Amino acid sequence: MNALPATIVAALANVLGDGPVPLHEPHFDGNESRYLSNCVASTYVSSVGAYVDRFEAELAAFTGAKHAVATVNGTSALHIALLLAGVQPGDEVLVPALSFVATANAVRYCGATPHFLDSQESTLGLDPTAMRSWLAEISTMKSGECVNRVTGKRISAVVPMHGFGHPCDVVGVMEVAAEYGLPVVEDAAESLGSLVNGQHTGTFGLLGTLSFNGNKIITTGGGGAILTNDAHLAQRAKHLTTTAKVLHRWEYTHDEVGYNYRMPNINAALGCAQLEQIDSFIASKRRLYESYLEALGQVDGVTLLQEPPGTRSNYWLQTLLLDTDQADQRDEVLKALNDNGFMARPAWTLLSSLKPFHSCPSAPLTGAKLLEQRIINVPSSAGLS
Amino acid sequence: MNALPATIVAALANVLGDGPVPLHEPHFDGNESRYLSNCVASTYVSSVGAYVDRFEAELAAFTGAKHAVATVNGTSALHIALLLAGVQPGDEVLVPALSFVATANAVRYCGATPHFLDSQESTLGLDPTAMRSWLAEISTMKSGECVNRVTGKRISAVVPMHGFGHPCDVVGVMEVAAEYGLPVVEDAAESLGSLVNGQHTGTFGLLGTLSFNGNKIITTGGGGAILTNDAHLAQRAKHLTTTAKVLHRWEYTHDEVGYNYRMPNINAALGCAQLEQIDSFIASKRRLYESYLEALGQVDGVTLLQEPPGTRSNYWLQTLLLDTDQADQRDEVLKALNDNGFMARPAWTLLSSLKPFHSCPSAPLTGAKLLEQRIINVPSSAGLS
Repeated sequence: MNALPATIVAALANVLGDGPVPLHEPHFDGNESRYLSNCVASTYVSSVGAYVDRFEAELAAFTGAKHAVATVNGTSALHIALLLAGVQPGDEVLVPALSFVATANAVRYCGATPHFLDSQESTLGLDPTAMRSWLAEISTMKSGECVNRVTGKRISAVVPMHGFGHPCDVVGVMEVAAEYGLPVVEDAAESLGSLVNGQHTGTFGLLGTLSFNGNKIITTGGGGAILTNDAHLAQRAKHLTTTAKVLHRWEYTHDEVGYNYRMPNINAALGCAQLEQIDSFIASKRRLYESYLEALGQVDGVTLLQEPPGTRSNYWLQTLLLDTDQADQRDEVLKALNDNGFMARPAWTLLSSLKPFHSCPSAPLTGAKLLEQRIINVPSSAGLS
Repeated sequence: MNALPATIVAALANVLGDGPVPLHEPHFDGNESRYLSNCVASTYVSSVGAYVDRFEAELAAFTGAKHAVATVNGTSALHIALLLAGVQPGDEVLVPALSFVATANAVRYCGATPHFLDSQESTLGLDPTAMRSWLAEISTMKSGECVNRVTGKRISAVVPMHGFGHPCDVVGVMEVAAEYGLPVVEDAAESLGSLVNGQHTGTFGLLGTLSFNGNKIITTGGGGAILTNDAHLAQRAKHLTTTAKVLHRWEYTHDEVGYNYRMPNINAALGCAQLEQIDSFIASKRRLYESYLEALGQVDGVTLLQEPPGTRSNYWLQTLLLDTDQADQRDEVLKALNDNGFMARPAWTLLSSLKPFHSCPSAPLTGAKLLEQRIINVPSSAGLS
């Protein structure tokens, strides 16, 4: 019998003590209740209000993006970002197969088709080298546009994603994207606070998106944001997320199909309180990483994912990587951890395997398939260290 | 010079005193801050939590629907309700031209086309008689399905909407819909608390939808709900609004294209506190109606919209109807009211006139066009009476 599951449980117990320990709990140690009460007292709880304006300004300042537009969740942010990147019905959009389902769903909402790419072990994110080879093999440029030779469809964007908060090689992806004239929409849903070469994730692409779902490093209950340095795109994002209503003293006129995607002020109030604490959350998660590293350092068969050189991870979800020859132990390890009260989860089922997407185009997914069998996320709350 | 604008301003001043008076402010006089603090303390602020369950149960009890599924807003509720009613890409969906843009946008999100119908003066809502004549003229039944003979497209649903909270003739619409095999999705976004023959609006159709936007009779900041008596549809609504994730102890699998449309617990906390006060809000709005009726009773050229026999309106937005021969005064009245600090608005620009929808199929809109020129909503907050 393989000893790895029990060994990992014992190592985690050294860090976490007795269970049960959730995978990720939000931490409310600041002005949350005060801001919520202030928001109610102001009567501005909905899509207009001072907290939304403040949250957007503070997100821009924190990430270094020139503009941040707060939305009702990360999925809606991604949907609008793809539309603004020029994704049209019938297009294909390059996305990692190893990602949360929202990445592919948002493509579908645009009437487009996700086209899956492989991931690399060092970052869990899009592999730029594999992306370059794949595009060389299957695409052709027509009138300055990248076209899939197999399907005949236009490839109109690429969506690198920073999985579990660990920065992917967005610089490498940007280079390949530029060679093919593809706009980059950066899915930074999980990586608020993560940097590449000192620059915040989500600010490399034409547009980037964030999520503040309850399981993220900071939460607004439900919420997201679109980041961009382009003032026109920011204005378009605000217009599209507020039902495309044309400003008028009293008339209700809308000049295109818009969306009810604006973050309510009550959620932004929570977000402002949370954002005040993000530095301490990240510091705490980095301490937890060190503790796990020490506990797992002597355990053969498993590695704790470390931020690649030149990056800073927010370590949103601590990530174990089973050795390749231990990949068949994944479900045993998951079972042992969960049975012992340490809530753990695998990576997402590869998007290319899901029923709604299994007929979509896909590059070879050698790296992603192996990662899917090797990744295990373990308890990661900011309150744990 | 026409004296009507000044006369209406004077009549409103008798009720409202000095301005400025907003069109509609939410009223937070209950447990709002307490429930919000409790919600934060529970750490369950996101898409799972006790307040969501409670809000859904209380909405079901209040409306008499067997099931209520809370969503991120009314637009998302309508989108999902249309999908569940069977609306497919390429279909046409019958909607009133006189409605908020969400009614038509939700049809577009399904890949379908809105097909506009006329409204009647007594209710502002869909005119069943005109609907019957129009369907007789342009539709044909093929294999049990209603098909538009002109466009060749299937007509797959009808969406009556209770404008400004005033119940439309949903019973009449249901009868015509039944003759053509059309499922009814009732847009009750504005009519929480409004009844037809003692039955709550939104519970007549196969599915109904509510909105709790900041301007509605109760608010969750942003929020909505799907009502239905069908347990299977309720389960489907919950599945589709929670990314179509398949329940599993740890796996992330999704069996169809789903949506991130679940109401966060923090918004539901606000909703629970608001719903406790709805009876007093409605009573207050009915008192305000009486005050306006008295003030406007002697004013020639304008009528205060009254609930039709057999219905109870929540009087969400008090509605003035200019006499037909005063319709050309609408903008003058709006200007006079707003200039004097009494915030007032016209009906929505007819959806059939909006740029994204002006090429969509449409019945003759004689009634709706006249109503568009005659409707003026005046200050209606529950705190005013």
